[in-house]
Amino acid sequence: MAFSERVTRLKSSLIREILAAAQRPGVMSFAGGLPAEAMLPKVDWADMPVGMGQYGMSEGEPALREALAAEARALGVDCQASQVLVVSGSQQALDLAAKLYIDQGTQILLEAPTYLAALQIFQLFGADCLALPMQADGPDLVELRDRLQRHRPAFIYLIPTFQNPSGLRYSEAKRDAVAALLDEFGVTLIEDEPYRELSFDGGSAQPIVSRLRNASWIYTGTVSKTLLPGLRVGYLIASPDLFPHLLRLKQAADLHTNRVGQWQVLQWLGSDKLQLHLKTLRDYYRTRRDAFQVALETHFADLADWHKPDGGLFFWLTLKQPLDTRTLLAEALAVDVAFMPGEPFFPDPDRHHGHLRLNFSHVAPGQLDEGLRRLAQVVRNAQAAQV
Amino acid sequence: MAFSERVTRLKSSLIREILAAAQRPGVMSFAGGLPAEAMLPKVDWADMPVGMGQYGMSEGEPALREALAAEARALGVDCQASQVLVVSGSQQALDLAAKLYIDQGTQILLEAPTYLAALQIFQLFGADCLALPMQADGPDLVELRDRLQRHRPAFIYLIPTFQNPSGLRYSEAKRDAVAALLDEFGVTLIEDEPYRELSFDGGSAQPIVSRLRNASWIYTGTVSKTLLPGLRVGYLIASPDLFPHLLRLKQAADLHTNRVGQWQVLQWLGSDKLQLHLKTLRDYYRTRRDAFQVALETHFADLADWHKPDGGLFFWLTLKQPLDTRTLLAEALAVDVAFMPGEPFFPDPDRHHGHLRLNFSHVAPGQLDEGLRRLAQVVRNAQAAQV
Repeated sequence: MAFSERVTRLKSSLIREILAAAQRPGVMSFAGGLPAEAMLPKVDWADMPVGMGQYGMSEGEPALREALAAEARALGVDCQASQVLVVSGSQQALDLAAKLYIDQGTQILLEAPTYLAALQIFQLFGADCLALPMQADGPDLVELRDRLQRHRPAFIYLIPTFQNPSGLRYSEAKRDAVAALLDEFGVTLIEDEPYRELSFDGGSAQPIVSRLRNASWIYTGTVSKTLLPGLRVGYLIASPDLFPHLLRLKQAADLHTNRVGQWQVLQWLGSDKLQLHLKTLRDYYRTRRDAFQVALETHFADLADWHKPDGGLFFWLTLKQPLDTRTLLAEALAVDVAFMPGEPFFPDPDRHHGHLRLNFSHVAPGQLDEGLRRLAQVVRNAQAAQV
Repeated sequence: MAFSERVTRLKSSLIREILAAAQRPGVMSFAGGLPAEAMLPKVDWADMPVGMGQYGMSEGEPALREALAAEARALGVDCQASQVLVVSGSQQALDLAAKLYIDQGTQILLEAPTYLAALQIFQLFGADCLALPMQADGPDLVELRDRLQRHRPAFIYLIPTFQNPSGLRYSEAKRDAVAALLDEFGVTLIEDEPYRELSFDGGSAQPIVSRLRNASWIYTGTVSKTLLPGLRVGYLIASPDLFPHLLRLKQAADLHTNRVGQWQVLQWLGSDKLQLHLKTLRDYYRTRRDAFQVALETHFADLADWHKPDGGLFFWLTLKQPLDTRTLLAEALAVDVAFMPGEPFFPDPDRHHGHLRLNFSHVAPGQLDEGLRRLAQVVRNAQAAQV
């Protein structure tokens, strides 16, 4: 059997196994990042033209590209519809970016921790992933300058708004400073914003790509967290120098994004019904976040530290007494609780023990307290055994 | 700008330019491979459950996988639902296969000519594409044995039923012989069958993968030619040794295929309404094929040779007096006719002058004669200028 060299880097299925176990009836799952089922909007298909069944353009539906460009401009991103590429979920934007930039050994720069599935696809293509240490308001700027200077990475991948998994949001000042450094060193920015709309305290600062003067950039978003993930509709907006390459890579990957989903998204973008839906969604998630905070204080106050997130879907816990949280999984699942160990969110997992990512949107409030009580007990048992 | 090495292999946009030009009002296009607009079935969405909007499984919808496996078993392919992976169009199956097998310089074996977009993605990943000469009933078996023996390619990619672009269909004997050779040398088969259902003379022989005893295989299909390409729903079925790798590659590429399209496909698979639709479709395309044959005889009898295809969407013309057909494009478009030059369908285009791929399903019968008359005149002018 002669597979490609890249296949040796396909990650083990730990995460798939967790998510599969989380589907078992009776399991209280803090593991996934799924929108709440009750919050999926009812959508109407009756008016969709038959022509949406025909092959479409690799770029995406023209009207949808216009609408997405208008939304981005409203956020301060100077762009035209011609820079918008509709993709099959924002994960595909990462696949295309990996193809565009990564050869085996190519150095790239990532937040530590960072989004698991980004790490997975970048490593699959052979990237040498450099970790950028984070502070409460964004990257450590001294470390960022150091890495840009020493390594000249092919790109930097950032999730500045309600980061997955840490939940943190960059300050205005850090956004400006990051943009200035990337301009200074001419390093491409990939800015991933799936959670921007899930803000519980009003607006968030403008995207970093809107602050760049000359560095190349890719800004990517999705309707998966706001509308319907099952549509598989995301998008990227790229600086004009990158767009033609990304378009050809999209065409080679799957010709074009499904038009049925694109049509549905277009029915919502910019509409009052979307604004109303987002308000309902934010209220719902905010309430769940608050209940989660209370339950955490009850069961984890002596075990872990955390910041209450102002948006997104996750709490990120740091154990006061670190241990490899992957070793807690079997025990937790044995008492019908699923969670996401923190180690796989780092390029160098074995140097980052002691974090847990907990989703607060999925488990019903009535089960929450019991679920966290059991999880805390699992941690206590493991720590007692360690001593 | 430091792109990956692979980006230097991104093909020029000749084909995109042809297809874009073909969209111009007034252009008679023989270039594309689009299903006839009039033949897109009206689909109903009213009964789709809200839950289809949620994230789904990377493998695909369980009921759809069952239905696709049952269809494949009916064709003689011994498989289970657990071997079925739903993908975002069969082009994605090729992207995943490329990731699984191709490093820079990896040798693979392809029909000459072969499907343009397959060549594109395999070359993007750096494949060294070996060309397999074809005869009217399938590959030249002496040449096949020779290449398997000398090169041990990572896989062979075949389109045995109404091949794109040549329209040819392998005989029963050739299918058996190809399977036996692949078993003998242990070379993986990727068998692509988008056109199987578009048969104008009744059934076609069983897939080659159903004849393998021990070689690994990937069988891929799509609903794009039979139902609706805009759904972007295709599938692959793989031997059990390959499936887990392909599944993880799918997950890394775009998490999962859109569920809305999957749900719609499930409403049709195995139904009487699909059988009725396919019959209508075959009758429609057969009539267009026959009209095309008549018009070709009028205008091209002295210029080219061809076989009347028994299925699929294309005629493949071989000029009696070869020339680089890419040089005819500007002239043809100037008289509002688009076609697909044959050269890009070969790994070594400059050694294969003198073929044209003509789609017979798109141009309305009333325009057909004038379109082919103009195209023949373009060929005559070029040949006269050559002398």
